[in-house]
Amino acid sequence: MPSKTLRLNMPQWQGGTEPAYRFGAELLRWLAPPHDGPEETVGVPAANEQPLAIEQGIQGRTALLSQARAARAAIERRQPSRIVTLGGDCLIDLAPMAYLNRLYDGKLGVLWVDAHPDVMSAAEFSHAHAHVLGMLLGRGDEAFTAEVDPKLDPARVMIAGMSAWSDAEGRILQQLGIRHTPAADIADSSQPILDWIKAEGIIHLAVHWDLDVLDAAYFSPLLFNKPDQPEGAFDGIVQGAMRLGQVVRLLQDVSSATDMAGLAIAEFLPWDMLRLKNALASLSIMQR
Amino acid sequence: MPSKTLRLNMPQWQGGTEPAYRFGAELLRWLAPPHDGPEETVGVPAANEQPLAIEQGIQGRTALLSQARAARAAIERRQPSRIVTLGGDCLIDLAPMAYLNRLYDGKLGVLWVDAHPDVMSAAEFSHAHAHVLGMLLGRGDEAFTAEVDPKLDPARVMIAGMSAWSDAEGRILQQLGIRHTPAADIADSSQPILDWIKAEGIIHLAVHWDLDVLDAAYFSPLLFNKPDQPEGAFDGIVQGAMRLGQVVRLLQDVSSATDMAGLAIAEFLPWDMLRLKNALASLSIMQR
Repeated sequence: MPSKTLRLNMPQWQGGTEPAYRFGAELLRWLAPPHDGPEETVGVPAANEQPLAIEQGIQGRTALLSQARAARAAIERRQPSRIVTLGGDCLIDLAPMAYLNRLYDGKLGVLWVDAHPDVMSAAEFSHAHAHVLGMLLGRGDEAFTAEVDPKLDPARVMIAGMSAWSDAEGRILQQLGIRHTPAADIADSSQPILDWIKAEGIIHLAVHWDLDVLDAAYFSPLLFNKPDQPEGAFDGIVQGAMRLGQVVRLLQDVSSATDMAGLAIAEFLPWDMLRLKNALASLSIMQR
Repeated sequence: MPSKTLRLNMPQWQGGTEPAYRFGAELLRWLAPPHDGPEETVGVPAANEQPLAIEQGIQGRTALLSQARAARAAIERRQPSRIVTLGGDCLIDLAPMAYLNRLYDGKLGVLWVDAHPDVMSAAEFSHAHAHVLGMLLGRGDEAFTAEVDPKLDPARVMIAGMSAWSDAEGRILQQLGIRHTPAADIADSSQPILDWIKAEGIIHLAVHWDLDVLDAAYFSPLLFNKPDQPEGAFDGIVQGAMRLGQVVRLLQDVSSATDMAGLAIAEFLPWDMLRLKNALASLSIMQR
């Protein structure tokens, strides 16, 4: 009998090839409100000195596949009706969305709040955090897409907050038939998203919130604020344009209009917290 | 028999009249390395809707005095030989420094790593976090200075990282006879501070690290990065110019040259963490 909300902690970093996602997941767990329901934590190996191997075009593929399957097993053990997933990189949402879509008979609505569409595959990019929405729709590495049954219904998927994309991403979005709404259209009102929910008759909604939908000038713990990067390190990569209050309003509005069955929070990279933690650990008085 | 290092958690916010210091103290405690020695947490009332009353020129004076005395009692209960204090606003360091100076027979060396001298009194400013070094030297509110016996020896006090000051502060520094070293002089080398330690024959050293000695352009969790402030809100207030790695190097160098008996970390204001925490708490799926 499904019941309650599962809190799924997933400190996965290999999908973004950035070990700091692990620390971000731990801090996100600390920041999240206390929770008295079931909780599962997916084991994720720490980074070591070796760079991640590229396997079938995907960095860290073996580890990522194993984590996706461990997440699926953890969810199936609990049989929740709702899942809050705390990441980690964007790929954390593969197993939760797949489970919820199965639970709700392939009719899950998916609001993908992100500056990026996450529909590439190994053919375009070796970082699998940029593949996850594609995988959920059946596009990409077969071992990962096999974890998703049934696939999402493209009409029930909306990307929100994406204002630009590459030519390759544009072609894939067209092939998949995915709609998207730019940040400007939802800056002051959630109406475009509420209209989509109504038009598609969405009852159960899962939200994927990639924090990089936020404007990095107004929210520090994002990839684009990584310290000590060479000039132009992020040139050509689309950045988010939303403000925190806008996303909160959007999520509250869609939560009022649907049963919010899933929420994943991804790509939290609190650089200054990590730097301060490391600074404190390096002072000998702290160890005495 | 004094032994071990006391970890003193002090989520005091009234000295800076900014309730977010309390959250900063909680997060700082989470970031600090694990500690197996004694630990004390000073109880601090949460903020409410009422602004703090100004009492004898100091906002929140009654609460602050009570917290300083509670910190002293907690320290005396444990009789530590070293204290790590996690704040909170700068005034957190009154009881720890006073205790250590008594323990070490009035010969405590004090390295005050700060963009500001913290030597004002109620005559100049109602926020007592800007009074604490003055109080430790016997200047300021009598109830607070009475907590300090013996007072610090001015020759054994060095302010590090302060590059500018007001006319009033300059006069007080001269009256007190306190030396200071600008950020530029310790950017690449700790030598000026090591020379002072050697010249004064300092054996036991307490360090006060106000994080606002850091350049706010390179370290986000500082007062000067408070979101949604009116244009010019911090005009005329001196800002820090040091980088995190420079302060860590300085602290490691003085730790090698002395017995570091005290370290207080103050003025940690992780705005984006607090905003995200509040955002998460406002989403109904988090409560289900």
